[in-house]
Amino acid sequence: MSKEFKLELVPGGVTAASGFTACGVRAGIKNDKKDLAIIYSKLPCSATGVYTTNKVQAAPVQLTRQRLSDGHAQAVIINSGYANACNGPQGLRDALKTSSVLAESLNIQENQVLVASTGVIGQNLPMDKILNGIALAVSQLSPEGGPDAAEAIMTTDTVSKQIAVKFELSGVPVVIGGMAKGSGMIHPNMATMLGFITTDAAVDVHLLNKALKSVVEKTFNMITVDGDTSTNDMVLLLANGAAGNQQLDSEGSDFELFCCALCEVCISLSKEIAGDGEGATKLVEVKVINAATVNDARLAAKTVAASNLVKTAIFGADANWGRIICAAGYSGADFDPGKVDIFLGNEQVAKDGKALDFSEENASEILSQKEVKILIDFKTGTETATAWGCDLTYDYIKINGSYRS
Amino acid sequence: MSKEFKLELVPGGVTAASGFTACGVRAGIKNDKKDLAIIYSKLPCSATGVYTTNKVQAAPVQLTRQRLSDGHAQAVIINSGYANACNGPQGLRDALKTSSVLAESLNIQENQVLVASTGVIGQNLPMDKILNGIALAVSQLSPEGGPDAAEAIMTTDTVSKQIAVKFELSGVPVVIGGMAKGSGMIHPNMATMLGFITTDAAVDVHLLNKALKSVVEKTFNMITVDGDTSTNDMVLLLANGAAGNQQLDSEGSDFELFCCALCEVCISLSKEIAGDGEGATKLVEVKVINAATVNDARLAAKTVAASNLVKTAIFGADANWGRIICAAGYSGADFDPGKVDIFLGNEQVAKDGKALDFSEENASEILSQKEVKILIDFKTGTETATAWGCDLTYDYIKINGSYRS
Repeated sequence: MSKEFKLELVPGGVTAASGFTACGVRAGIKNDKKDLAIIYSKLPCSATGVYTTNKVQAAPVQLTRQRLSDGHAQAVIINSGYANACNGPQGLRDALKTSSVLAESLNIQENQVLVASTGVIGQNLPMDKILNGIALAVSQLSPEGGPDAAEAIMTTDTVSKQIAVKFELSGVPVVIGGMAKGSGMIHPNMATMLGFITTDAAVDVHLLNKALKSVVEKTFNMITVDGDTSTNDMVLLLANGAAGNQQLDSEGSDFELFCCALCEVCISLSKEIAGDGEGATKLVEVKVINAATVNDARLAAKTVAASNLVKTAIFGADANWGRIICAAGYSGADFDPGKVDIFLGNEQVAKDGKALDFSEENASEILSQKEVKILIDFKTGTETATAWGCDLTYDYIKINGSYRS
Repeated sequence: MSKEFKLELVPGGVTAASGFTACGVRAGIKNDKKDLAIIYSKLPCSATGVYTTNKVQAAPVQLTRQRLSDGHAQAVIINSGYANACNGPQGLRDALKTSSVLAESLNIQENQVLVASTGVIGQNLPMDKILNGIALAVSQLSPEGGPDAAEAIMTTDTVSKQIAVKFELSGVPVVIGGMAKGSGMIHPNMATMLGFITTDAAVDVHLLNKALKSVVEKTFNMITVDGDTSTNDMVLLLANGAAGNQQLDSEGSDFELFCCALCEVCISLSKEIAGDGEGATKLVEVKVINAATVNDARLAAKTVAASNLVKTAIFGADANWGRIICAAGYSGADFDPGKVDIFLGNEQVAKDGKALDFSEENASEILSQKEVKILIDFKTGTETATAWGCDLTYDYIKINGSYRS
């Protein structure tokens, strides 16, 4: 980009952008934890989403996808504790009922409400608690409610995940804020990667969709905790235009800026999810450079980040680069094994596909940090991709392998 | 099959078939464990192999594949401890040297020798130990050497894996015997799924290849321990004709019988590998029935067996069928989620994609057995596939995540 791009971090998460309120309340769905969140914009929003590719799609995914076919929304309601997946027609009835009760409370059209759920699969929503919770939640909606909302959507997450950035589009300050949850694609009882992003920028819905799709491809779609793709994944982006910028309705430098800022938001949330993976002690970043195609780079980066053997080696701070090149080898990426260089942090451990006489001590030190960077140089082309994951630990087994009493 | 098919289990593994000798010796490659095996047939054999699809192929895989382009071999030498992968041109030189020294000792053509290795990636073979070991090994070759050979190829395996079956082809008794190793696709230091099968049946090499390919597709290719495909995987099949049957050189009922017996051998070895997966406490069998295509059935069965969340649930004896349908959902298999029935052992836990009110106690009891069977009925077509895996446990993390001092 030729022009200078100033991006400022601001507090507030999904309520950092003008015109958005939110809340997170205890509806009693889970024991004594916040479990119901609402995001609301009085102004109508352009809105778009990306959804799980799982063949089994939860009722809220089905409903939200259908609702967003016209590109507009004003409210999102999210519950944790139950996924509302694999509940047959009752699941869809419950999602519809939730949205109609919220629409009535907010006095908006029912088709302006989007629904998301995360939690255990195959058990019906506790509708009495959810309906009572909606009344409470609506009374709590506030322009400072972003952090509460981020907390209410957590399941096995150990920290809430939010960010907001401020930048200018043709001189007009705009904000993009977001929150996410996810710590395994599915959890012991609970589930899912969810992301919600709000902006006060005015953006044509087709461009909004284009921006979200291209950014998600490079961010949320490049994280992996356990390789299990949930039935409930979704990322939603709502733009209400409250910033007063001239609506973005063609590609150009402002659209580039918007995508760039959106990408920062999504990278931040993605790294938070990966680093907070179930049982994880370390965030792992795998970067593949100089690949022939972006697809080769992505396949290799994501496969290395997802490999149980690479993940356990990082847990053990073991500079076992053979597992890294092996995972790249079965990823489906096209490359010449005899040309590959591998670095752990600043320590080169393999050159031209063969061992280097590196310092095991230094490598082990690097692998003991909270953030571990793996760089794989294919030395073939010019394309790059980055994936984020975490180590695989005893606690992952504990979290997912303990029988619920 | 219309005619009766009698299959008798016999002892001896790879030396159960007439005309094969084998051995397993301590060459000092690993500390005080058997680490070098040879299989040898005085008679020339038809021989064929299937190999890892990893882009990174170990030197022994490259050499053996090239040697088998003419469909003949008489000897196989296998070392454990080092994979001889990612060693550049030195790796191929070492594999060639190994084969030429063995050929000389046995007084056979060098191109009759096949080579396999399993162990740590990226470290050169200790050639002095291997060459000294060959002299010792050749002196130990014996028609009773099968069990020693099966022991010498172990790495993190906790038990050696072998089987042999006897049956008749047009009235002539023939034997197929095999051994295998593998307990993760790659191991802490060590690596690989290897399988070696011998038969005294006379079989045309093209039919032999056809039989091996079709059987491996349904057996070794349907096991998963950790989803990591090794750089060194191979399965070899040698047929020396010592049984004196009329050579199989066209498809027909005898070929069907041969494939059927070969399949039994490969299923047995596959289940042994899956059940002895690193850290495993249980063998898991996932069967998908009534799928539209074999590919759908295979994709779903293997993906469910490979899911970390399904594997941890089984470790915890948790009847979390949501994880099973979720994994089927992202497998790429085509099915209607609203029609799926799921059984754990004899307990049905889901019907038409929704929860049944099943006995958690009974299900947990079933999941606590040494062998756990999951049945998924797509109720769409007539195709079936079975995959084998194991649970994911604390010990998997211990084995693969402990830093080697």
